[in-house]
Amino acid sequence: MNDLETNAKTLGLDERVRRQDSYESLITNVRDGLNSTPIFMLSLPHGNVVDEVIEILRTHLSKGAIILDFGNEHYKSTERRERDLKPQGIHYVGCGISGGYQSARAGPSFSPGGDPAILELVMPLLRHLAAKDNRGMPCTTQIGPGGSGHYFKMIHNGIEQGMMSILAEAWFLLAHGLGLSFQDVATVFRSWNEEGPLRSCFLVGIGSDVAKAQYHYGDSVLATVRDKVVQDVDESEGTGVWTCQEAVSLHVPATTILAAHLFRCASADAARRAAVCKVMATGGDLPQPNRINGVDQHAFIDALRSTTYFGFLSCFAQGLSVLRERDCERGWNINYRSVLQTWRGGCIIQADHVLDILEKMYSSNEADIDNIYANPDVAMELLQCASSTKQVVLRAVEADLPIPAISQSLEHFKYIGSTQLPTQFMEAELDYFGKHMYDTWHEPPGGPKKGSHHYEWKPATGRLDKN
Amino acid sequence: MNDLETNAKTLGLDERVRRQDSYESLITNVRDGLNSTPIFMLSLPHGNVVDEVIEILRTHLSKGAIILDFGNEHYKSTERRERDLKPQGIHYVGCGISGGYQSARAGPSFSPGGDPAILELVMPLLRHLAAKDNRGMPCTTQIGPGGSGHYFKMIHNGIEQGMMSILAEAWFLLAHGLGLSFQDVATVFRSWNEEGPLRSCFLVGIGSDVAKAQYHYGDSVLATVRDKVVQDVDESEGTGVWTCQEAVSLHVPATTILAAHLFRCASADAARRAAVCKVMATGGDLPQPNRINGVDQHAFIDALRSTTYFGFLSCFAQGLSVLRERDCERGWNINYRSVLQTWRGGCIIQADHVLDILEKMYSSNEADIDNIYANPDVAMELLQCASSTKQVVLRAVEADLPIPAISQSLEHFKYIGSTQLPTQFMEAELDYFGKHMYDTWHEPPGGPKKGSHHYEWKPATGRLDKN
Repeated sequence: MNDLETNAKTLGLDERVRRQDSYESLITNVRDGLNSTPIFMLSLPHGNVVDEVIEILRTHLSKGAIILDFGNEHYKSTERRERDLKPQGIHYVGCGISGGYQSARAGPSFSPGGDPAILELVMPLLRHLAAKDNRGMPCTTQIGPGGSGHYFKMIHNGIEQGMMSILAEAWFLLAHGLGLSFQDVATVFRSWNEEGPLRSCFLVGIGSDVAKAQYHYGDSVLATVRDKVVQDVDESEGTGVWTCQEAVSLHVPATTILAAHLFRCASADAARRAAVCKVMATGGDLPQPNRINGVDQHAFIDALRSTTYFGFLSCFAQGLSVLRERDCERGWNINYRSVLQTWRGGCIIQADHVLDILEKMYSSNEADIDNIYANPDVAMELLQCASSTKQVVLRAVEADLPIPAISQSLEHFKYIGSTQLPTQFMEAELDYFGKHMYDTWHEPPGGPKKGSHHYEWKPATGRLDKN
Repeated sequence: MNDLETNAKTLGLDERVRRQDSYESLITNVRDGLNSTPIFMLSLPHGNVVDEVIEILRTHLSKGAIILDFGNEHYKSTERRERDLKPQGIHYVGCGISGGYQSARAGPSFSPGGDPAILELVMPLLRHLAAKDNRGMPCTTQIGPGGSGHYFKMIHNGIEQGMMSILAEAWFLLAHGLGLSFQDVATVFRSWNEEGPLRSCFLVGIGSDVAKAQYHYGDSVLATVRDKVVQDVDESEGTGVWTCQEAVSLHVPATTILAAHLFRCASADAARRAAVCKVMATGGDLPQPNRINGVDQHAFIDALRSTTYFGFLSCFAQGLSVLRERDCERGWNINYRSVLQTWRGGCIIQADHVLDILEKMYSSNEADIDNIYANPDVAMELLQCASSTKQVVLRAVEADLPIPAISQSLEHFKYIGSTQLPTQFMEAELDYFGKHMYDTWHEPPGGPKKGSHHYEWKPATGRLDKN
C-alpha cells in the first residue's frame, strides 16, 4: 500500500480513491464506472510532460471526453492542445487552479477557459469543489474561450509575485528596520489582516503564521530559512516569467511586478551574491541594513500598512492592465466584474478590500477598463496612500534597507498620472541623433502616435568629415 | 532629380551615387561595375520588409554574393535568414550599426556577426567606414557567429534606453529640482562631458547641445518638445523590447534597463496620463514635482554626476550580463574585451570611463565574466558612488520628482551584493502554501538549486473541511 492509499484509508476514502498503474486500467475503470462523459483532471508540471500524457491518453479516449488541465500552463500551449484534440472530438479545458497544496482540503480557486459549451458542463463540478467566499459563493467563474483560463491564472501568479515582494519588504522593515521580534511582527500582520485595507489578505494572514512559527524547542522556523527563491530561475515555475514577458511584449508598465520578479531571481543565486559581498566588503563601507531611527513606531507601522496596501493595489492594477491588453488582442471578451469572483477566496492573492474597490470600479459607469488609474475609486485609494508610501521609502532608503518593489510602486504612481515627465529630454535626444520626430505642447496630448516635428539640432556641415 | 541625387551632386559625389529604379538594373549595374564579390548593404526597418527584399534579391544573385543587413533585427530572424540563404551560396551577415542618421557623415559603430570566413571579407570595408576612437582605432570588431552581431546591437540599444532614462531624470532634477535654466544645465552637462567619470559620453555631450538649442528668435527648442516617447509602443523600434524580453527569459535582473524601458512606454500615451491626472487632481493633493530645498547646489550637482555614472555603469553591467547568458546558451564564444572596441566611438552609448573600467575588468585575471559585480574594479566604482546616489534618491523622493531608473539602480545595487534579503520571508511563505522547499543558513550559500527542507507551517487537520 503506497502513501496515497494509506492516506485515503486514514480519511475513510479508500472506497473512492483508486490508484491505477497503467493508462489502460485507468480508462477501463473510468469507462465502466460511469454512465456519462468522463472528465480527466490533470495536475502536472507545465510543458512537455503534459503533452506526453495527452498523447498517450488520447489514444484511449473516445469522442466527448473532457480533459481538464489544472497545470500552470502558457496560454499558447493551452490553445495548441485545444486545437489538436478538437478533430478527435476530445475537449481540452485549460483551468487555472490556485490555493497551494493545502487547498486540497480547504478548496481552491478555479479559472477555467475554453469552449463555452464545455465550460457549462464542468462548472457544476468546479463550483462544488471550489473554495467558498465569505458570502458563500464558489470562487470560480468561466473566464473566456481558448487559453484565457490559464492566462488568468498566470496573471494571478504575476500579481502574487508582486504582492509577496511588497510584504517581504514590509517584514524586513519591521524586523530589521524597527527591530521588532518575529512574534511582534506576527501580531502586526494579524491586526492588519483583521480590519482595514489589508483585511482578509491570504498572504498577510499566513505571513503572521510564518512569523510566529516555532520549533517545539522554541526557535523560530522563519529564522532558519535562507533568503533564496529559486523556482523562476530553475524554470520549475513559469508563470512569473511569462507575466513579465507579457507586460514587456504588450508595453504595459507593470513595473512593481517586474521589479519584484527580478529581485527574487537575483536572490536565487546566493553564492553569486556572497561573492559580490566579499569583494565589496573589502571596500570598507558596504551599506548594511540599518535601524530606522527617529520615527514614532506606531505611526511608522500605520504608514507601512498604507504602503503595503498601495503596493498590493498597484500589483492588481498592473496585472489587470496586462490581462486587458491580451484580452483585446485575442478577443476573449472577458467580463472583469464577473471573473474577480475567482479571487474572492481559495487563492493566494485574496485581498478583500482591493477586490471591493475593483468590483466597484468594474460595476461603475465611470469604469475605464483600459485605464484603471483613471477610475476615481482606484485613483483616490492610491492618492490617499501615496504620502505614507513616500515616507516609508525615505526611511528605508536612509537605512539602506532594500525596497525594490515598494519604491517602484511609488515611481510608477508618480508617472502614470503626470503630464510633465523627464522623457521630454529623452525624446529631444532621440530626435537629435535619430530624427525620431516629436510632438510639441501646442498639440493636444494624444495617444502613442509618432510626432510630426523634427529639429536639426546639429546641422550637417556639408563636408564628409569624421567629426 | 530626387533628393538623393541633389545631395550627391552638392557633395560632388554624383559620379559615385547612382539611384536604381529596379532590382534588375541594380544587379546589372553592380555586376558590370565589379570584378569581385558584390556586397549588398541593407538599411531597412526590422521584420517583414527585409524578408521581402531578400526574397526578390536572391532570385538575381549568384553564389558568393554577400548581404550585409544593417537593420536592428531580432537575432532569431538573422539566424533564420543566414540558414535560408546558405544552400544557395549567398552569405547573410547581420551587422549592428549605431550612430544615428548623423553618423552617415561622422562614421558609425559596426557590430557584424556571421560566418567567420565571410566576416574576414567584410571587415576591411567596415573598418574603413567606421568611426575612429580617440586612439585612431576603428569602432568595429567581429562579434561572433550567427545572430551575435545583431544581438550585440540589441544589447547596445537596451543599455542606451537605460542610460537615456538616467540622464533624463538627472536633467529633470537639475531643471525642475534645482530650478536651473536650460542654459545652465547645458553648462553642467558640458563640464561633466569634459573630464571625470562621464567624460566623452555621447549622450551627455549631445545633452548639452539639446539643453542649449534655441530657435533664431531665442526660445528654447527643448522646451517645446512633448514628454512622450512612442517608438517602442508603436513597434517601429524593437530592440528595447527585445532586450527586456531577453533579460526576463534569461532571469537576469537588468532592472535599471527594465524600469527605464517601461517608463518610456508609459510616457507614450500622453492622453492616458492626462486622464489619470485629471481624476487625481480632483483629490486635491496630487504630488507635483517640487523644488529640492536645503541642499548646497554645487554639492548636489556633484552627487548627481556620481549618480549618473552609477546608473550608466549599472546599465552596462546589466546589459553585458544579459549578453553573457545568451552567449553561453548559443555558444557564440564572444571575446568581451575585444568587442568593447565597437563601443569606443561612433555609437550612442560611448562612455569612455565606463569602457576603461570594463576593459580593465575583462583584461584582468580576476575577471569573472559571469558575475561582473564581483570584479574589484567594478565593485569599487559602484561602492564609491552609492552614497551619493542614495542622497540624490532621498532628495528626489522628498520633492516628488520621478526617478524610476535611478532609484532602481540603487535598489539593484543593494541586493546584488547582499547576503540577507527580504526574500527570506517570501521563501518561507512559498513553503507554507506551496511546499516549495527551502535551504537553511546551516548549508553553504549555493547556487539556484531547489532547497531540501520543508516545514508543515499549518498541519492538516485530518478532516475534509473548508477552512
